[in-house]
Amino acid sequence: MLMRDPQAVVGRRVEELDTPALLVDLDAFEHNLALMARFFAGRPSHLRPHTKTHKCPAIAHRQLAAGARGVTCAKVGEAEALAADGIDDILIANQVVGPIKIARLIALAGRARLTVAVDDAANIAELDRAARAAQVTLSVLVEVDIGMGRCGVQPGQAALTLAQQVAGCRGLHLAGIMGYEGHLVFTLDPEERRTRVEQALAPLLETKSLLERYGLPVETVSGGGTGTYDVTGSYPGMTEVQAGSYIFVDARYRQVRPEFRPALTLLTMVISRTQPGLLITDAGLKALSTEFGLPEVLGIPGAALKPLSEEHGKIALADPAACALRPGDKLQILPSHCCTTVNLHDVFYAVRGGLVEEVWPITGRGRCQ
Amino acid sequence: MLMRDPQAVVGRRVEELDTPALLVDLDAFEHNLALMARFFAGRPSHLRPHTKTHKCPAIAHRQLAAGARGVTCAKVGEAEALAADGIDDILIANQVVGPIKIARLIALAGRARLTVAVDDAANIAELDRAARAAQVTLSVLVEVDIGMGRCGVQPGQAALTLAQQVAGCRGLHLAGIMGYEGHLVFTLDPEERRTRVEQALAPLLETKSLLERYGLPVETVSGGGTGTYDVTGSYPGMTEVQAGSYIFVDARYRQVRPEFRPALTLLTMVISRTQPGLLITDAGLKALSTEFGLPEVLGIPGAALKPLSEEHGKIALADPAACALRPGDKLQILPSHCCTTVNLHDVFYAVRGGLVEEVWPITGRGRCQ
Repeated sequence: MLMRDPQAVVGRRVEELDTPALLVDLDAFEHNLALMARFFAGRPSHLRPHTKTHKCPAIAHRQLAAGARGVTCAKVGEAEALAADGIDDILIANQVVGPIKIARLIALAGRARLTVAVDDAANIAELDRAARAAQVTLSVLVEVDIGMGRCGVQPGQAALTLAQQVAGCRGLHLAGIMGYEGHLVFTLDPEERRTRVEQALAPLLETKSLLERYGLPVETVSGGGTGTYDVTGSYPGMTEVQAGSYIFVDARYRQVRPEFRPALTLLTMVISRTQPGLLITDAGLKALSTEFGLPEVLGIPGAALKPLSEEHGKIALADPAACALRPGDKLQILPSHCCTTVNLHDVFYAVRGGLVEEVWPITGRGRCQ
Repeated sequence: MLMRDPQAVVGRRVEELDTPALLVDLDAFEHNLALMARFFAGRPSHLRPHTKTHKCPAIAHRQLAAGARGVTCAKVGEAEALAADGIDDILIANQVVGPIKIARLIALAGRARLTVAVDDAANIAELDRAARAAQVTLSVLVEVDIGMGRCGVQPGQAALTLAQQVAGCRGLHLAGIMGYEGHLVFTLDPEERRTRVEQALAPLLETKSLLERYGLPVETVSGGGTGTYDVTGSYPGMTEVQAGSYIFVDARYRQVRPEFRPALTLLTMVISRTQPGLLITDAGLKALSTEFGLPEVLGIPGAALKPLSEEHGKIALADPAACALRPGDKLQILPSHCCTTVNLHDVFYAVRGGLVEEVWPITGRGRCQ
């Protein structure tokens, strides 16, 4: 039974799926895909969707077909999973450090066009040595910290110093710079968000100008997320936006980005109802993430999840008499954080009109190395 | 590279492992295994360890070899993974509901001795029909709610009614009753814990007596967890304790159970240090769970994790000058919740004296169905 074939449910009704199961509403998904494609269609900047959200080559191929310029991921393991499915222009928007990971990176560089972020001189030297030894050329973006306080060097001189080092490495190609305004993606007020994002991007683009004054070409200036795609994608000089969550939009992003439609839900089943006011379901912390707050119960007015157990959800009903659900009945939950919820599952069930149209393996699931 | 063989690192030094990687300290693990075995050796009650903690048949086999009476799990999928590795006495301490799951349960019942929990008359009838159709007999525990307010019927008459129904089902064997004092497992004060646990167990054992007065045999009274194993395992009439976390003991359980040793850590790597007071690591929410609070940084006095990103940890240093770690250096993190952290990974690296002795696949990972 370990090898049950998920594809066997294609054509079945959603209610016939075993639970918990991740559902992708294809109409909402295609709305999101098309809306983002339209936004970038008339602009000098490009979409390079972050695949950390879905970890799924089937979705990445659809994003590329809709006009995306390559894809983004966070780990070498995710890049391996994408390349194994024929995706060949991959930005690892993260530092790749140490001999084991660099060996994997270089092995992969023979099979896909890879770009990585750097923010450390010793790491640059190590990447260069490995690339030269394997006779490959690795593209590199110097990461600039534009206020998030995570990875990246400071704008200006520190970035210039690293860019000059990269430019002097025969195994590396200086592709440009990168900065992520991750501290601003959930700013609720659109005007405040625009103002703060533009303030954050200004030093990134000044760094681009500085590098160019020193004769270093900067083809790529990459950054942005779903919360900031419109501001960042319109900002003069930005060439790429790494938005990921737009494709699903969870309970949290829905507040920031109402133009996208929630496309990802979890199908769960009532397994116990011994108290009229409580539904116990089969989806707990091993099926839904909660770091962005509790997921939302769909379709039952006034119903709310209580803190999750590992394998149980507990839904408090506002009006027990109005809810006829019994053990065996199914309902849907809107995740509060799509990216970490997806990482708990192995497949998406892509549904339309209540039927399963396709099953998409999440081949990047768990690939945190 | 998707098919890298994790076993290839057996014999290597821990520092040579790719990161993030889950480490099991074999000395601490064996201490925990032996301590729990000694506790139950002289008692009428038995340990039936909950495998939700490790989801790993290699560990389950060691628990059985140390004297455990079968194992516990939460989902049919976990039971399938255990049975596929030759484990044949499995309690699914949860309701198994609906035709798809019951069909899987019945198929598995031909290959392993299975027991399931019930708390609903319609579910009992459905289990019975399926068992009779397949000509198997399924063992059943009536679940009693002893204060957690999750699954289970009320003690006394409600439990008796279900037990009588089960006893009248030709496809089912009434094995006994079950109650989980999950709301008490983290009670910090030992005396308060003992008092409250005994108060919670009393109605469970009164229910046992009630069933027996009605001529229903109650071989099994199952319950308990790591936080309560000593009280529950000593309580007259309890026959089984379902403790799971004792085998690892995380940052939270360590406060309740100092007699066990933390045996599970996450090896992570510094990937960026552009600010002296901050280490950025490669382990975020996709490698560590945080619903029980932030994990603990080991080996760096005064260092503390800040809220995790998806793929980054951010460690604030109390004394930056005293910490020489640079990108590429590795350190260990003590998870705050072992069970949900394990569910993010595919293998354990079992280590002793700084060397990898074995690699154990986490075959139950992600099996939330």
